[in-house]
Amino acid sequence: MDAETATLPRDARHRVERSKARARYDRDSVHAILDAGMIAHVAFCVAGQPFVIPMLYARDGETIVLHGSIASRLMGELADGVPACLGVTHVDGLVLARSHFDHSMNYRSVVVFGRARAVVDEAEKALALSRFVDAMIPGRAAESRAADRTELAATHVLRLAIEDASAKVRSGGAKDNPADLALPHWAGVVPMRTRYAAPQPEPELVDAALPASVRQLLAANEASA
Amino acid sequence: MDAETATLPRDARHRVERSKARARYDRDSVHAILDAGMIAHVAFCVAGQPFVIPMLYARDGETIVLHGSIASRLMGELADGVPACLGVTHVDGLVLARSHFDHSMNYRSVVVFGRARAVVDEAEKALALSRFVDAMIPGRAAESRAADRTELAATHVLRLAIEDASAKVRSGGAKDNPADLALPHWAGVVPMRTRYAAPQPEPELVDAALPASVRQLLAANEASA
Repeated sequence: MDAETATLPRDARHRVERSKARARYDRDSVHAILDAGMIAHVAFCVAGQPFVIPMLYARDGETIVLHGSIASRLMGELADGVPACLGVTHVDGLVLARSHFDHSMNYRSVVVFGRARAVVDEAEKALALSRFVDAMIPGRAAESRAADRTELAATHVLRLAIEDASAKVRSGGAKDNPADLALPHWAGVVPMRTRYAAPQPEPELVDAALPASVRQLLAANEASA
Repeated sequence: MDAETATLPRDARHRVERSKARARYDRDSVHAILDAGMIAHVAFCVAGQPFVIPMLYARDGETIVLHGSIASRLMGELADGVPACLGVTHVDGLVLARSHFDHSMNYRSVVVFGRARAVVDEAEKALALSRFVDAMIPGRAAESRAADRTELAATHVLRLAIEDASAKVRSGGAKDNPADLALPHWAGVVPMRTRYAAPQPEPELVDAALPASVRQLLAANEASA
């Protein structure tokens, strides 16, 4: 693993105690992992009871913009600015070892601490919606209709400033106990990839040609096959 | 969406207020979504501060078995039996609509509430380890060496009884506003799949032949291509 370079604030609450070799606190690692995802698991506490909600997100500098198709009560709690913590994890492969104990996963994960606030400004909400669309599929916001005032009024958007963040990455092969190398069991990595399958168009399209955003997704698919 | 059939306990803390059409409380839906995953985002509170940790898990009846490569301090907090909440989400596709507002994701998610306790019995810990291995890749536990006493002593395993659980599922195409159907923008679903790539064997294998578990994974890959 790379050496750590501390450029994001950090304190005791997010220090990774075990597996320090896997921990990264540098801004670029955190941003890259966040930018590779779309769904975060957002946690907060209400009277000691934790809640986790999967939410769509997009990174905007040192802020996470959140947009949840969630219960309004929970969205209200979160928007009140209570301490929040969110996790994003990408699974990159299965690590098969000679022993049960040394089986592992290759993954990239980020944990972020911060507090959310509701976005009320219409223009800022509209911009956030376009960011979600582009986070889902780059270039797509320009290919579809921006939100109108009625839609913005029905939309809950939150901004969460990143107070602390840390990343954890495991990559590479199995790390078997040397005494196990003589065992006849296979060991190695089975990489996992997210692939896009053939698009399923809606029936009433005015123009059925695939847009550039979707063609680029599929081309990236082929390039990594 | 299917009609709900309430067979898991439920109370106010997990009721899905919005999008009731997407909510499912039946045991089979919850189990199927849990069984399709390997990584859960587990949340708990310490003095009002939420923590989220990505953890390997396996379902065992109405219990979630957890195994975290995590900071021992946090594992200790969780093992103390504080209220916990965990989320598992599978992303199935991008839903592209004519409007930003109606863009969505197809997904399956579960939120579970319960309390964890540490597993101390050696045989139970060994069984849990083999379950993690089989949850990662079915049939693999029998193809690798079971944990010995030293490894078990170094392993933290938690069991979390499912007190409440709910599932949420979105599937199907874009749900555009009828007024938008005349717009020239493409709309439809781009399905997403997890694929296994070519295995990367370790260099010192006694027998380099792919084991049955890996061959079955790759065959399932081909079948769904």
